[in-house]
Amino acid sequence: MTESVIIHGDIIYSKNMRELACFEDSWLVCDSGASGGVYRSREDIPARYKAYPVVDHSGCLIIPGFTDLHLHAPQFAFRGLGMDKQLIDWLDQVAFPEEAKYADTRYADMAYRMFAEAMRNSGTARALIYGTHHTDATMLLMDNLEKTGLVTMVGKVNMDRNCPDYICEKDHETSLAETERWLKLTAERNYANTYPILTPRFIPACSDKLMIGLANIQGREHLPLQSHLSENEDEVKWVSKLCPWSTSYGQAYDRFGCFGANGPTVMAHCVWSTDEEMLLIKKNNVFVAHCPASNMNLASGMAPIRKYISMKIKVGLGTDVGAGHCKSMFDAMVQAVEVSKLYWKYVDRHAKPLTMEEAFCLATRSGGSFFGRCGAFDPGYEFDALVLDEREIRTPIADLSLKQRLERFIYLGEYRDIKAKYVRGSQVII
Amino acid sequence: MTESVIIHGDIIYSKNMRELACFEDSWLVCDSGASGGVYRSREDIPARYKAYPVVDHSGCLIIPGFTDLHLHAPQFAFRGLGMDKQLIDWLDQVAFPEEAKYADTRYADMAYRMFAEAMRNSGTARALIYGTHHTDATMLLMDNLEKTGLVTMVGKVNMDRNCPDYICEKDHETSLAETERWLKLTAERNYANTYPILTPRFIPACSDKLMIGLANIQGREHLPLQSHLSENEDEVKWVSKLCPWSTSYGQAYDRFGCFGANGPTVMAHCVWSTDEEMLLIKKNNVFVAHCPASNMNLASGMAPIRKYISMKIKVGLGTDVGAGHCKSMFDAMVQAVEVSKLYWKYVDRHAKPLTMEEAFCLATRSGGSFFGRCGAFDPGYEFDALVLDEREIRTPIADLSLKQRLERFIYLGEYRDIKAKYVRGSQVII
Repeated sequence: MTESVIIHGDIIYSKNMRELACFEDSWLVCDSGASGGVYRSREDIPARYKAYPVVDHSGCLIIPGFTDLHLHAPQFAFRGLGMDKQLIDWLDQVAFPEEAKYADTRYADMAYRMFAEAMRNSGTARALIYGTHHTDATMLLMDNLEKTGLVTMVGKVNMDRNCPDYICEKDHETSLAETERWLKLTAERNYANTYPILTPRFIPACSDKLMIGLANIQGREHLPLQSHLSENEDEVKWVSKLCPWSTSYGQAYDRFGCFGANGPTVMAHCVWSTDEEMLLIKKNNVFVAHCPASNMNLASGMAPIRKYISMKIKVGLGTDVGAGHCKSMFDAMVQAVEVSKLYWKYVDRHAKPLTMEEAFCLATRSGGSFFGRCGAFDPGYEFDALVLDEREIRTPIADLSLKQRLERFIYLGEYRDIKAKYVRGSQVII
Repeated sequence: MTESVIIHGDIIYSKNMRELACFEDSWLVCDSGASGGVYRSREDIPARYKAYPVVDHSGCLIIPGFTDLHLHAPQFAFRGLGMDKQLIDWLDQVAFPEEAKYADTRYADMAYRMFAEAMRNSGTARALIYGTHHTDATMLLMDNLEKTGLVTMVGKVNMDRNCPDYICEKDHETSLAETERWLKLTAERNYANTYPILTPRFIPACSDKLMIGLANIQGREHLPLQSHLSENEDEVKWVSKLCPWSTSYGQAYDRFGCFGANGPTVMAHCVWSTDEEMLLIKKNNVFVAHCPASNMNLASGMAPIRKYISMKIKVGLGTDVGAGHCKSMFDAMVQAVEVSKLYWKYVDRHAKPLTMEEAFCLATRSGGSFFGRCGAFDPGYEFDALVLDEREIRTPIADLSLKQRLERFIYLGEYRDIKAKYVRGSQVII
């Protein structure tokens, strides 16, 4: 149930990539699911909000909920396992064998229930999530996510070639027919917070006909689409062989109609994007889901995030569960900053490391913008908020600023330190 | 009080860098503070241990306690803060201003109490710890650590040049006299588990006469010594200017007598060590404390750990609180593996990434060997053990091996998931 409340505490959010809006001891209004703004004193609260009940979180940090732009629900099962491989071997030996289990809806329901609970308890308010190619299991994933109160876009995965028989869809017709069936089921369910997103796994696993078919569906249904792009150098070479006519991996997606032309599109990783590919990402308003932990774990590399930010490409962060082991989006922010420092040191001395403000903006306002107006407390923005409990992060220093407290929490806090969570104005029970 | 007990559970420890010893549903004997070995069935337990009380941790993972080879107690206060700087600026703007506060023993006692509690609650059983240059504050640090039951080596820091007046010792005579006073005080305290370790901050902050004086004390007192080596490229250049006669940073330490000739020595970081320096590290049996988080956070670089391991140089892990933000040694292991993958990808394709087994060995047996026979459950080894609670790390996968459970815990567990902790056979209250 969407609440109208006023939350009292120390409020902080991103104004933009460079600046934080900091309001100590202030009042954050939630007006029927949307932000009514932040006020430095109770007297400043507009009369129309004054009767709303006040929830007292004095002394607690209050920040926007996070958007996780890329993760795989069936891979939750093996988080922290099988980390000694690179992408292609990891898919064959770790990811695919687990994903195959989701043909069994009983297993899927049990696994997705655990996954949904973990998502509910995390700092994530919104997420773009891959299921498997199994339509019925993906419906169970969506059913379980809907119960959490989180806002998610969930994809039945399409994959009709170049993967083991036991996990490969029969052909593009089957894959497309199952996609239509899945879309019909999601429409019937009439979810409040759970949306379908088209999810071709990646070009190596999707035939040309499948890609074109998905582009048609996207155009017809005005759906968003998510996939993987230029994650691993061998993968990039593979795509150039599979699509010998392409000038880049991104241009191959574009030629199929799956690179922003037919609807909002997110591409995960973009570690090895060429200049041409970057320009196409920019031109087509494609979002980049930066997954630093995954890119380290699978030894994929370091994405040129400073460049994307300079080009004003839209970037957000992804945990990429399960290749990413991040325990939370807090970890993802730290990893983004860390990797950007090594990128600066080893790859490009012009690529200034990310600041904490930038990493925080990626995880909130910037990534959140894929969902529209969320990830900040600007008046009218959808109301996603986290109340943070700093008691476990002790220090003898008495006079930390809000900004310092936020930085410290990002580096040292975790999901167990979240005291309350609101998504679209409703409190999520954690 | 040292216990003699038998612990029942799923026991796992490093045999060596490559191999784990795994004992499911087995019995680990603690015999008056030392390991009495691991037995696969109750019948196999030697008669002389059979009367010991059994502590039932069935189903829990039991691993050796960790050794943290490098951290700064006064920097605990600003963990997770000021991460947008490199070494020299970070010292001047973040570390030194905080360390200066430890002239006030009231502040020091409050701060070190918090630090000691955090250490007690962590997975760390043993640690090499820097204080500040203040003798009295360092005694308070040692007093507080002694109460935890952890085994630590703690250093009053020496620094008599090239740092701000407010944190610089007057001259080498003052610094050496304070060192003698400190050693006298530690001898009087007669600690059971807390030992002094000589701690010249690093060559830039220590005059030649101070270094030579410390080498003399080391030889006379048979004390261990810790310092920093080749962390940052600018620092390495600075040392070559300060010691124009030196052929490497390490050789400068060696010429002063502070590089293993006068006693066991640990050098933190070793990111930019030259081949010559590496050979000297090896020849002198100097330990390398690898601090991957710190090296990322201060944009120092990536240490060539594969090379050190191949050369059979002794390596352990350090959290390097506060330039390292690691919440625990679990994080340090993950970061060591991650960084080694980027090192392989960007610096040296012959430097195979670290495996989980290697990272675990670094954190236990390898780093622990600085303290003698500890970090494993070989019979006769000092008994440091952690009992891990995996309940927070849910998965639908039913049949994980011990090795997989360990890997998963390293990636996803944290201090709050430690159920019990033993150091030298005594249970630490966490």
